[in-house]
Amino acid sequence: MKTRAAVAFEAKKPLEIVELDLEGPKEGEVLVEIMATGICHTDAYTLDGLDSEGLFPSVLGHEGAGIVREVGAGVKSVKPGDHVIPLYTPECRECKSCTSGKTNLCTSIRATQGKGVMPDGTSRFSYKGETIHHYMGCSTFSNFTVLPEIAVAKIREDAPFDKACYIGCGVTTGVGAVTKTAGVEVGSNVIVFGLGGIGLNVIQGARMVGADKIIGVDINDDKKSWGERFGMTHFVNPTKVKGDLVAHLVELTDGGADYTFDCTGNTDVMRTALEACHRGWGVSTVIGVAEAGKEISTRPFQLVTGRVWKGSAFGGAKGRTDVPKIVDWYMNGKIEIDPMITHVLSLEDINKGFDLMHAGESIRSVVVF
Amino acid sequence: MKTRAAVAFEAKKPLEIVELDLEGPKEGEVLVEIMATGICHTDAYTLDGLDSEGLFPSVLGHEGAGIVREVGAGVKSVKPGDHVIPLYTPECRECKSCTSGKTNLCTSIRATQGKGVMPDGTSRFSYKGETIHHYMGCSTFSNFTVLPEIAVAKIREDAPFDKACYIGCGVTTGVGAVTKTAGVEVGSNVIVFGLGGIGLNVIQGARMVGADKIIGVDINDDKKSWGERFGMTHFVNPTKVKGDLVAHLVELTDGGADYTFDCTGNTDVMRTALEACHRGWGVSTVIGVAEAGKEISTRPFQLVTGRVWKGSAFGGAKGRTDVPKIVDWYMNGKIEIDPMITHVLSLEDINKGFDLMHAGESIRSVVVF
Repeated sequence: MKTRAAVAFEAKKPLEIVELDLEGPKEGEVLVEIMATGICHTDAYTLDGLDSEGLFPSVLGHEGAGIVREVGAGVKSVKPGDHVIPLYTPECRECKSCTSGKTNLCTSIRATQGKGVMPDGTSRFSYKGETIHHYMGCSTFSNFTVLPEIAVAKIREDAPFDKACYIGCGVTTGVGAVTKTAGVEVGSNVIVFGLGGIGLNVIQGARMVGADKIIGVDINDDKKSWGERFGMTHFVNPTKVKGDLVAHLVELTDGGADYTFDCTGNTDVMRTALEACHRGWGVSTVIGVAEAGKEISTRPFQLVTGRVWKGSAFGGAKGRTDVPKIVDWYMNGKIEIDPMITHVLSLEDINKGFDLMHAGESIRSVVVF
Repeated sequence: MKTRAAVAFEAKKPLEIVELDLEGPKEGEVLVEIMATGICHTDAYTLDGLDSEGLFPSVLGHEGAGIVREVGAGVKSVKPGDHVIPLYTPECRECKSCTSGKTNLCTSIRATQGKGVMPDGTSRFSYKGETIHHYMGCSTFSNFTVLPEIAVAKIREDAPFDKACYIGCGVTTGVGAVTKTAGVEVGSNVIVFGLGGIGLNVIQGARMVGADKIIGVDINDDKKSWGERFGMTHFVNPTKVKGDLVAHLVELTDGGADYTFDCTGNTDVMRTALEACHRGWGVSTVIGVAEAGKEISTRPFQLVTGRVWKGSAFGGAKGRTDVPKIVDWYMNGKIEIDPMITHVLSLEDINKGFDLMHAGESIRSVVVF
């Protein structure tokens, strides 16, 4: 079949809107009509050539929502007509990771996904006979895409695609880091470093679970009103703090935060986030992705005196199990998405979405097919 | 009253055995006759002048066991005749830390303890009219010492002092790191870096809770038989591993250890310990005390992919609550202490105990009064 898609033919070039050839789903695979997709920083990271493992040409996009149109042999968990969110972190429920009950980092198709192909080692996309790679196992910048059955989360049919797609990455990453990775309890004091889309979702996750102080830290004062919109109780601009930032934050939280989250990807900020934790029990969670080669450091005394350093990928959420619950939270009003979708674009305007992101003018741009 | 004690008059000099003046217990304090005391690396660290906050003259020693001989006004939890272990980490059960239920790092008397005095700001020890400092709130290198009520753990009377004293620091630090800080479960794979006294206690803690593989790592082959004596199943000498040590340990544990423990204090080893953890859920616990100014580092990717970095002080054990349980474990044969007590000395020979430690010829030397 044919599908309209935005293709990254090479790094550092705008995406091109073309008609691709798409093979139908093989055994254990499903064909999904993507109805909407968000444009995430990770797509830009790859497109800008910063990901040393980035493959071209490829169909980027990993934050989508759509409808199953066809299923391959042996597919049992979804059927044509089901509404789904593609999962860049699949959930096979059979590998050592899935059965451990301790992590969401399913390893069953990691090798092939990293090579830009389906689990059988081949791609379903081609253009004029040339293979086009899949991306993060999703490739949601295409009106139709093929996914492994274990890489789709079935969701309720009344969830609007142009909002639910954001749950495919940003919302789950932020909200899940609070509920799954850190396990923030009611009454906790929380500090969030970096008030981009992930940071705002951490803030609203903390609000949802009943955190007490929710302190947002960002060097851009314009983020203050955004943070407050989702539950932030205090705003700190480090460039305006006299003296030591850690000491200021420790004072603001009566000894340090119970939970801190780095949503910046800056390794210096990650250290600050750890050290702003309360002695004895503070937990700092790294969400942001650091530049290649950068390292985090601290004195081991910080750990010996009870602080814990951990990290979160896809919010620690198991895709097929937890993503449908987060869709429920959105539909029930426990979390908000609508005000975060600052721009809605057509596929033809997808490059504008990247421009808005680079200019810092969007929280989330969504492409609607 | 008078008490015989080993006094550290100044750094880098042998202890001197003298008769000190000791004031009796004030309100909320107890007088304890120390029956036995271990000699720990931390005592040597201070005596060797490596602790920038070390105070002299002082009565060192923090790993003792004895009998309450007198109690001050208001003391309710112990009475003369009770057998106790002094606690350098007290448990007031009233401060923010104690009531948090999340940490053992009671803060109620931290400030005065750090200054070498009792909670009222004064010392009970003096020599020829000159004040002698307390040490770690314990000063067990004295036949009699005065402690805050909240800094003694009441233990069963059939536990032998010359073994139980080791529970005052080394045993609890190692066993507690396994049971309290890391929470190792039955069937886990564990790697222990550094097979000194703490490492051996981590090993036997792991054996007690039913760990599967218990891998000991040490550059000294002589440690192999010691490790095996307490439950170690595999021994790795890093100097004899061809290629990358982390890769070797990951292979040995089918993907990485569920739990690793640093008992070396070497910050490079701490990094290795983290990176030898299993992707998705491995937890690395820092126990060793690093040199001043040294830092730990890693790529944040290690955390984002599910490894957790934490630390442990006094094994995460609450002194008055958990120490009596560990004494029970010893008396019930769940853990061993006797073979670890390699040398028993009189107070007059206490400096020999430090010499044996520095020469690496003892696991634990105990002074019996």
